[in-house]
This record gives sequence, structure tokens and C-alpha cells, in this order.
Amino acid sequence: MPQSTDIPGLSVELDDWIRESIRGAAATLPQSGIIEAVNYGRERPGLIPFWVGEGDIPTPPFICDAAIQSLRDGHTFYTYQRGIPALRDAIARYYDRHFSLKLDSGRVIVTSSAMQAMMETMQTVVGAGDEAIVVSPVWPNIYACIHIQQSVARSVALRPDEFGWHLDLDRLLDAVNPKTRAIYINTPGNPTGWVMSRNDMLAVRDIARQHGLWIVADEVYGKFVYDGRHATSFLEIMEADEQLIVTNSFSKNWAMTGWRVGWTVIPKGLGQVYENLVQYNTSGTAEFLQRGCVAAIDHGDNFLAEQVARCSAGRELVCDALLELSNVRIVKPKGAFYLFFRVDGEPDSVNLTKRMIDEANVGLAPGTAFGPGGEGYVRMCFAPSHDTLRTGVERLSEALRKRAAA
Amino acid sequence: MPQSTDIPGLSVELDDWIRESIRGAAATLPQSGIIEAVNYGRERPGLIPFWVGEGDIPTPPFICDAAIQSLRDGHTFYTYQRGIPALRDAIARYYDRHFSLKLDSGRVIVTSSAMQAMMETMQTVVGAGDEAIVVSPVWPNIYACIHIQQSVARSVALRPDEFGWHLDLDRLLDAVNPKTRAIYINTPGNPTGWVMSRNDMLAVRDIARQHGLWIVADEVYGKFVYDGRHATSFLEIMEADEQLIVTNSFSKNWAMTGWRVGWTVIPKGLGQVYENLVQYNTSGTAEFLQRGCVAAIDHGDNFLAEQVARCSAGRELVCDALLELSNVRIVKPKGAFYLFFRVDGEPDSVNLTKRMIDEANVGLAPGTAFGPGGEGYVRMCFAPSHDTLRTGVERLSEALRKRAAA
Repeated sequence: MPQSTDIPGLSVELDDWIRESIRGAAATLPQSGIIEAVNYGRERPGLIPFWVGEGDIPTPPFICDAAIQSLRDGHTFYTYQRGIPALRDAIARYYDRHFSLKLDSGRVIVTSSAMQAMMETMQTVVGAGDEAIVVSPVWPNIYACIHIQQSVARSVALRPDEFGWHLDLDRLLDAVNPKTRAIYINTPGNPTGWVMSRNDMLAVRDIARQHGLWIVADEVYGKFVYDGRHATSFLEIMEADEQLIVTNSFSKNWAMTGWRVGWTVIPKGLGQVYENLVQYNTSGTAEFLQRGCVAAIDHGDNFLAEQVARCSAGRELVCDALLELSNVRIVKPKGAFYLFFRVDGEPDSVNLTKRMIDEANVGLAPGTAFGPGGEGYVRMCFAPSHDTLRTGVERLSEALRKRAAA
Repeated sequence: MPQSTDIPGLSVELDDWIRESIRGAAATLPQSGIIEAVNYGRERPGLIPFWVGEGDIPTPPFICDAAIQSLRDGHTFYTYQRGIPALRDAIARYYDRHFSLKLDSGRVIVTSSAMQAMMETMQTVVGAGDEAIVVSPVWPNIYACIHIQQSVARSVALRPDEFGWHLDLDRLLDAVNPKTRAIYINTPGNPTGWVMSRNDMLAVRDIARQHGLWIVADEVYGKFVYDGRHATSFLEIMEADEQLIVTNSFSKNWAMTGWRVGWTVIPKGLGQVYENLVQYNTSGTAEFLQRGCVAAIDHGDNFLAEQVARCSAGRELVCDALLELSNVRIVKPKGAFYLFFRVDGEPDSVNLTKRMIDEANVGLAPGTAFGPGGEGYVRMCFAPSHDTLRTGVERLSEALRKRAAA
């Protein structure tokens, strides 16, 4: 039976007067567990950081130029709360071109980051005392996002075997109770690289239908798959008037992590609710940023293909090197751009990340940061350029080889 | 005795399946009441819009250029969750130069709009079942922001007389009960132009201290005063380790409404909690936007002075014209950039705004949008350029003169 989950992360030391005067959900909100490694290694000269989810290529000029032109054109006023129509239409075209999906742009909402989309989505579907099921290990922010709604996240952990990560549908069904309102799924998954099978998606859809639950699908790595054109989207298997909210981001596809623009696809009847949430959370996203995003979608297919190709080769590079080590256990990721691996005799992932900083000067993220199922693992991002990957993996291999010999 | 307040705004029509499947706070979230007028007038050719809180001057080039340079320099990666140190330091200098306040930049957090700062602040101080006192009539989004926390906003309405708007401290004290956690105050106030006196601020501070309440001060119009250099900030009368959170914005000072960047000043011990909330709400604000904001503060004093001077003259222009009408009741605003006025024989503010669209082709905001104390009033923004103000006010005067004669 799955347990109600404490949110993963580092608890925060607070002065008594602060702890007593703020609300409970804020007082108990942890710091991301990735930070523990980052804080340990931040000041090391020459450290190679593989701990965050971004590459090392800045946003390409054709995207920046469109934002710059918009700024010069004076697009600096309040704008549409749902996003400018040009961008919502472009996003609909993205689904048509890349997923062969005909999507009504009326279902698209532009958000100030996919993180913010997730916050607005959770504000929509869960409240105090409600529960949401989270398939873990996963991007830790989602736990905090649910906690801020004063709701409980209930983890269902994926299970690894030599062929990949697997979702146990019986355990997911066991986690449903009368308080459950939503199921959160990140596919392709960060940190595991799990890509949910269409059959599993159909089964989860049916569970959600049967119990009246929302599916909250985080599909920001939808194009980062290493077999096929794209991961299956829940949009392909559910109707426009079902309890489905899909979020996505410009960050990963077009090297725009720093822009903080995302989007969400909602049932059409939810439009005014979501528009209101945008109004009351951020009051919209800068028009000149959105003009850059239009350029990203309309002129960025080649760039996106190059991003995926670089990650695909990076994945081979990293896996080939680490598979040579006798003490490293790898489930080769099918999607996203992370390697999530174990090292024999190293059950403590925070300890291992600290020693890889000391011994290899390489920054990894500890698996504990990603909730149930993550302990014992470390996460390495393989989105950076290959020279950086090569140097980092060489250093890691040497350090891990010494550990095996020790 | 003040009553628990329904959030002002327009209730949203929802399909039954949507209403039943989403959480209560989302389902009952209203649309801003300003929208009712906007929707009525949006398509009118030649309409002059005075209904939103922005001028008609785009962001000046020296600010855009700094953001553009930063984009060209490749500042497109994830950045500091609390804001880049250069901007936090610049904000501390802003308080020194404009408020003669020595502020530790460690207390400053950059946020993705002041709206988002208010959301993060309310996430900090109120939860399900808590109450927050709101001094009204006020910017309506704050009600929704409290509602999203599943908390109750309790209004204490300002009272107008011929000399201005007044806060009844006894009524405010009456509104405090065991569930109260915070007092929200917007000074200078939107829509009233009320500027809270230092004596009233001291009194409210003492009430907050006595009852262990947070003061949430929205000071985005702090420089827009028409007597003196600036409105008194709560930062001037409270210590660094008290229950005070102050928010501010780049929007109004430097014509940057469309950028969606704000800031907040918090007690130092709250830093990690607030950083976590930024992480889980938006994961930060684009570095290249923040570089533009540094330029705004460091090189924008003259521009800011011109903005205030233009609004000051715009206020005279608008008040002089409307005071000539026998049927218009004006409390001349002491701060912010709105005229909030009544028309004899026109108790229904939504009706009046619609007729001013029909008869003058001018867009105003109905007072009902601003909560208790607002009915019977309409709000007009006098931040636009003087030519636009002159034309708009002429049309308004003509229409209102006809009403007086009718």
C-alpha cells in the first residue's frame, strides 16, 4: 500500500518567530534536495555541473532577434492573459507538425514558465485535504507545488529492471482513495528517462475516467525520445472535454530555460477559470518574450532536431563510458536527457554526489531529491555539449573505477 | 461590524462537469469586474481606454537596450531564484536614494511581477480558514489572491469626505478576530488615490504588533504622490525582523507594465522560505529582464521624475475639467494615478461605465470591481499622455453635462 509522502528535499531552519507566524505549508516547504549537492560544490574551481536540467548552448539568435524586434517595436504593455493569439496559434501548429494532432488553439494558455503552469494547474484541481497521486521518482518541484495547495502528494514509485522503469498499475489503483483528485505523470520522465507506453497511458486514462480524476501530464520532454519521433501525448488518447491538463515548455526544446515561458493545454470549458488564474498569479507573460516564442516554434524545427540529436549522441557517449565500469548499474533512458544510475556499494546518494564533487569535480544530483524510488541513484544531465560530457565522464569514470578497486 | 466579503468581480459560467471536477476556490474565482466594461467596449472604433493602470508610453530605450545586450550576451540560462545580486543591490540603492532608507539587499527578492509577489506573499501568510483584512476599495486582484489560498478577505472600507478618504481605525480593529493573520494595505491606493498618513500607519503597525499580524504593504505607487517626494513606506516605521512584507513593481515607475517584474522586501529570516516559493511558483525571473531592471533603477531617476510630473499635470487637467461639472463628485487623489469619482443620480457604476462607452466612447472601470466602498464610483486612469487625456475628458464632460441637463 503506497504511503502518504513527505515532500522530498531539505527542511529549512527558521527562527522561531518566523515559523510561528507563517502558515504551515510555507513553514514546512523544503528546499530542493538538488541544492544540497549544489551548495557543497558551488565554489569548486573547474567543477563540471551536470546537476541541473539544461544544456550549455544559449538561446539561438533567430529567437532572441524576434524578442528584440518586439521590444524595439514597443510591445511593452499589458497583454492577453491567455497569451497572444499568434503564439497560441503557433502552439497549435506545433502539435500538428510534431504530433499530427489537430488542436483548437482556444485550448492553449501561455504561462510564465511550465513551473507556473503546474502551480496554476494544481490551484485548479486540488485544495486543502485533497490528494494527488505522483508517479515517482520525479522532478521534485511537483511535490512542493501540491503541498502549497495544502494537499497531499501520494507517491507511486516506478520499478526498475534491466530493461527499463515500469509502472505498476495495481499499485497506482491502490493509491486512489476518496480524497484523490488528480494523477500527475511526467513522461518522458525526469530523472528516470522512463517513457510511458501507450498501453499504460490507456490504462491510467481508464482509471482516471472511472474515478473522476484529473490527469495532469507534464510533457516537457515529449520530443526528447531516442526511438521514434515523439513520446505519446495524453492529448492523443483523450478528448477535448475530459479531465486532462497537459503542460509543456519552451525551455528544453529551444534552449530557453532562462526565459520562463511555458504553456498548457486545457479542456475548452476551463478557459475562463485558467485565464482568471493567470490574471491573479502573474497577470500574463511579456509580449516580447512571446514574440520570441513564436519564432522558436515557426523557425525552430531544425534547431529542435539538432538538440535531440545532440542529446541522443550524448546519451550514447555517457552510457558507453559508464557501462564499462563494473560497479555502475544503468537503466538506459528512453527519453528526456538524464542518466539515473546506481553505484554498487553506494546506497547513500547524497554522500555519493558529495564524493563525486571531491574526487571527480563533477556535479550530480542525489536521487533522494526525486522522492520515493530515488534513493541509491544519482542523476546526471547529458544535455551539455559533447566536449564537456567527455571530460566530465572521464573524470567520473576514473573516480568510480577507484571506488570499485577500493 | 465589518462583514466577511465575497470577492468582487463577475462570476464565471461553467459547464457542470467542470464545476464539479475542479476545486471550490477555482470554481468560485471571479473574473475581474473591470472586464465587464472592457468586454462591452473592446470593439468600439476610436474608444479611448482609461480603464487599465498604465500610460501610453512604451518602455524607454535605455532600459530595453540593457535587456537586449543581455540577451545578445547569452544570459538565457536558469538564474538566481532570489534575483540576480546586481538587481537586488540596485533595489537597495533605490530605497536609499528615494526613501533615505538603508536596506540590506539580503531582504530583497525579485519576483515575476508584483502580482506574483502578492501570490507568494499570501502563500506565506495565510492558509485554509485564515482571514486577511483588506482596506478597500482596492485593486481587485488581491481578493482573488487571498481566495486562492482558501482564505477569507475581510474588507474595511475607507470613507470619503470632501477632504479625502479616511481609514476608521476602530473599524479595522473590529475586523480583527482569532483567524486574522494579515492586514493588506495599498498606499498610495488604487483606485482611491488615498495616501495613508504616517500616524495611521503607526496605529496599524501597533495593532499588528499587538495581535501578531503580518502587514502586507503594496507600495507600487510609492513615488506617485502630489505633495512631497514619496509616500511613507512601512519600511520606514518597522524593523527588519518584524512581520512586514512590502511589494513593489517596475511597471508603474518606469513604464514597464508588460515586463512582469516586481520585487518584495521581506524580514531577513524569511529568505529561504521565500526563495523556495519562487522556486516552486516560477523558478525565477529571466536574467535579461533583470538586466533591463538594473538600468531602470540606475539610470531611470529622470524618467521616473518625468512620469510623476506628467501624472501630476494629468491629474490637474482631469480634475479641472470634471470639477466644472455640477453633477460630478470628486475626491482629488493625493497619490497613484487614478481619479475615482461619482456622478449625481448614477448609483450603478457598471451601468454608468457602459453609458460612457456608448455616449463618450471612453472606457472607465466600474467601482464595484474594487470591493466594498466602490459602488457608485467609476475609476479613470490619468497616466496616459495629455493629448489623449484632453480628448477623453472633453468627450466625458460633454456626455456628463448632457446627463446633468437631462
